Amino acid sequence: MERRTVFFVSDQTGVTAETMGHSLLTQFDGQAFRQVTLPFISTVDKAQEAVRRINATGEAEGVRPVIFSTLVQEDLREIIKRANGLFLDFFDAFLGPLELELKLKSSRAQGKAHGMQDVGAYTTRINATNFALANDDGAVTRDYERADLILVGVSRTGKTPTCLYLALQYGVFAANYPFADEELETGRLPAALTKHQRKLYGLTIAPERLQQIRNERRPNSNYSSPSQVDFEVRTAEAIFRRYDIPCINTTECSIEEIASRILDRTGVERRLRP
Amino acid sequence: MERRTVFFVSDQTGVTAETMGHSLLTQFDGQAFRQVTLPFISTVDKAQEAVRRINATGEAEGVRPVIFSTLVQEDLREIIKRANGLFLDFFDAFLGPLELELKLKSSRAQGKAHGMQDVGAYTTRINATNFALANDDGAVTRDYERADLILVGVSRTGKTPTCLYLALQYGVFAANYPFADEELETGRLPAALTKHQRKLYGLTIAPERLQQIRNERRPNSNYSSPSQVDFEVRTAEAIFRRYDIPCINTTECSIEEIASRILDRTGVERRLRP
Repeated sequence: MERRTVFFVSDQTGVTAETMGHSLLTQFDGQAFRQVTLPFISTVDKAQEAVRRINATGEAEGVRPVIFSTLVQEDLREIIKRANGLFLDFFDAFLGPLELELKLKSSRAQGKAHGMQDVGAYTTRINATNFALANDDGAVTRDYERADLILVGVSRTGKTPTCLYLALQYGVFAANYPFADEELETGRLPAALTKHQRKLYGLTIAPERLQQIRNERRPNSNYSSPSQVDFEVRTAEAIFRRYDIPCINTTECSIEEIASRILDRTGVERRLRP
Repeated sequence: MERRTVFFVSDQTGVTAETMGHSLLTQFDGQAFRQVTLPFISTVDKAQEAVRRINATGEAEGVRPVIFSTLVQEDLREIIKRANGLFLDFFDAFLGPLELELKLKSSRAQGKAHGMQDVGAYTTRINATNFALANDDGAVTRDYERADLILVGVSRTGKTPTCLYLALQYGVFAANYPFADEELETGRLPAALTKHQRKLYGLTIAPERLQQIRNERRPNSNYSSPSQVDFEVRTAEAIFRRYDIPCINTTECSIEEIASRILDRTGVERRLRP
């Protein structure tokens, strides 16, 4: 199959262009793409250099590239637009209608989305990340008073990455507490958790999938044996029912999806926007 | 100032709609926005319920909302489009031109962008996150053979959140090693690091900003004193020069920006796309 190169061009990090481009590209199964990010294209020189690179790629591959761009400045957009490729700019498409609707001119300033204008947001994110790290895996620090959420479940259901994602993406303070022998044998939760019952959210997973994940980590151990995994998942789900803890099955979910569903269902407020 | 409500409507997590909307909204300084995410709008019923909510908000506030949406299915888009608001859908704007260019029909399948189609990508992300956690702050595990990058610098320059962001966003394996008394007194790096010199990347920061950050953590300590902070930053920068370690000043950078600049400058390959 003929491969086509896709460029993500941005005057900033390129995260928005990548996010936008990626969701569109996944709609075309029948095409292979090579993805190249050109971030920090913030001057005329850099824009001209980007055009040269895009054109050279198109000539070498015999098929013109697709360009997803997020360029705030019109003069830079105009330069990239002249490259020989399909040019899809996100500000180009949406700033006009927004200006009309809001009856305001946009400031057309670079780097607002991911810059450091907002020291408060930076601090929130760092604090939330530190909170997640300090309150990971039922560790010594159990600062559950400050938690927005406490994720519970057996080992390897996705609690740690979900907490970190909630911190970095949304500034949400999420702790996690893995069910260990004590909870699994008694089917009961410690007072440290029941005190904060309304903050608890359960993660569960299909036993077959969990076994596969654990087996990669510790092959042929009791930890990854079908009987142990079955027992743990069943007991965890019984605990969720006993304590009326809402829960999500993570078997088919990405980390973004787990995080987003939990926020949606609990109504926990995002402290940051991506 | 009249506040306007913005809805992010998505058949999936809403991350793409939020990212897209946020970069546009930051271009309008003169307007206050209230932001509401309506994720997982994947059925006609849910879409109609979203329209009711959008319309009720518009009526209550006396100004029609802005709707950023990422809805793959045309029938759902058509429903949301009928809400009384400014409707900006991302697939609406870009899928048509892409189909023409690629000479392919899009699959118009929900949830490709952040679903779990790709178990390999999920595993990469989890492994990269575990790697960042295990190799955080020069901890016991120093699995630098597997590292794509090793971030170095003094305490509180942003190493840990950058490593976690690189893992979660891009699947990049990033370790971090904080300069402690030993490095700062001798101005030399241990063999564990010099062995992997080409993987090292330095983080530095303005002393005034570092002092402010450290003072929030441990007020009135030696750790946050101007003389100590000055000494540490100066010594770290001397180490970067001595060992020819590229470095970034994080004073005015968001975590996304630090991560993106490091990937751009080192050429380290993203293992995942957002």
